[in-house]
Amino acid sequence: MASNDLAVEVHDLTYAFPGSKRSAIHDLSLSVEWNKKVLVVGNNGAGKSTLLKLLSGKHLCLGGNIKVGNKNPFAPNNDQESVILTTYLGTEWASMAIVHRDIGVLELLESIGLSHYRARGEELVRILEVDINWRMFKLSDGQKRRVQLCMGLLKPFKVLLLDEVTVDLDVVARDRLFQFLDRETRDRQCSVVYATHIFDGLAPWADEIIHLQDGTITRTLDYQRDIHFTKEIEGVQERKDNGRHTVILGYMKSLYPLALHWLTRDQVEDQKL
Amino acid sequence: MASNDLAVEVHDLTYAFPGSKRSAIHDLSLSVEWNKKVLVVGNNGAGKSTLLKLLSGKHLCLGGNIKVGNKNPFAPNNDQESVILTTYLGTEWASMAIVHRDIGVLELLESIGLSHYRARGEELVRILEVDINWRMFKLSDGQKRRVQLCMGLLKPFKVLLLDEVTVDLDVVARDRLFQFLDRETRDRQCSVVYATHIFDGLAPWADEIIHLQDGTITRTLDYQRDIHFTKEIEGVQERKDNGRHTVILGYMKSLYPLALHWLTRDQVEDQKL
Repeated sequence: MASNDLAVEVHDLTYAFPGSKRSAIHDLSLSVEWNKKVLVVGNNGAGKSTLLKLLSGKHLCLGGNIKVGNKNPFAPNNDQESVILTTYLGTEWASMAIVHRDIGVLELLESIGLSHYRARGEELVRILEVDINWRMFKLSDGQKRRVQLCMGLLKPFKVLLLDEVTVDLDVVARDRLFQFLDRETRDRQCSVVYATHIFDGLAPWADEIIHLQDGTITRTLDYQRDIHFTKEIEGVQERKDNGRHTVILGYMKSLYPLALHWLTRDQVEDQKL
Repeated sequence: MASNDLAVEVHDLTYAFPGSKRSAIHDLSLSVEWNKKVLVVGNNGAGKSTLLKLLSGKHLCLGGNIKVGNKNPFAPNNDQESVILTTYLGTEWASMAIVHRDIGVLELLESIGLSHYRARGEELVRILEVDINWRMFKLSDGQKRRVQLCMGLLKPFKVLLLDEVTVDLDVVARDRLFQFLDRETRDRQCSVVYATHIFDGLAPWADEIIHLQDGTITRTLDYQRDIHFTKEIEGVQERKDNGRHTVILGYMKSLYPLALHWLTRDQVEDQKL
């Protein structure tokens, strides 16, 4: 494998929506190595969704250079690979019509290739607490979302682009999903780029944190190297150490551990009944 | 005002969906005082949304007794009050059709009474960073959600029932919204019941935390009295102190303070430009 082999490689990317004078992404450069989990942090409108769509090949980009797994994501993929290159799970994906129809979960999963990925499918069904006997049109939003995630993750990906699709999940399902993605990036040659507004439990999960501002990346931090936690301070301190940007974060009060503790126990009790 | 005057009062509530044998809510009792902010915590399917819909009068409940602001929420409200009793913001509300049409934000807010609540409307527009010149059909999901929240919160409520509607908001808008609701519950006689899966920044916001399990409330904790934080432990300890349930929580590592710090600064910079 060549030493320059990267999961995502973007140079000087600029993108404006058709008919718009203002660019949504400008002069953006990004490298993501294999086996990495990257969080993308930015305000509404900073360009997170646009960036993920460009990486997934949903938008054609003329200015700049994008490679995902050494390939142009917009080019047609003629490989007969059992592992697909990119899986993109975003907001349009979440509103797919099929999940509202009168169809069973098993039938739905079989229609997208469950027989080829049986073990993986069983693991996802367990993690996301999906019942394969469910009928889709009878489900709650949270249940539909969990089925969708099973569908989206059934085929092994090389690069997973997640645009905040965990919002309907309860804390237990979210936690298990992130543990699954952690194992995936450790055990297979793959990477995850996740744009989110929800930070509960994600601190130790992330390998890199990218700050996207006004269409460009203003900061990339390596979790192990650049971020330090201390119980001695409150809030955030940023500083330059030998030219390297470092962040020191105080520990915080959060009800998240309590919710995770309670709701995990609830699920164990439910399974005993 | 009578001493038994409560924002929400529920006794022995049992509710099954029409045609279902299994009750979604059973033997549930709940009291919420005025000027309180209550978090409802539970797994997908625990009954959070059903409870909020019952409190809002969206479901007729035959078994048990519900009062919201001393009134049956299902009874027709003939009061000519400028303050409305209940505002319910949930998932169906989030999919209202009007927000996808070619209509301006100002026009939309005027159609629901902006002229009567001018100061409040201006505050909400500022907090949620809404531009009144926006055209709805051109907006991103996050922007639409912010307009919807302005619309839903424009009229002063007595009891606000929030079913996880902040999921598209970036951390800065979410933080400002929760500060607004904190001021509301302090300054006016009103209360907020908020069902959520997102705990970032909510610890000091909540007055009470309710644990809903399998259609019933198994635990109610008072934030000041029953929950204690210590830097000495990791995770969660639960214990009985003189018959009272107490929770001790360790401080946790979270990237939320960093995201809030970065993205607040981004917005200040954007305003300077």
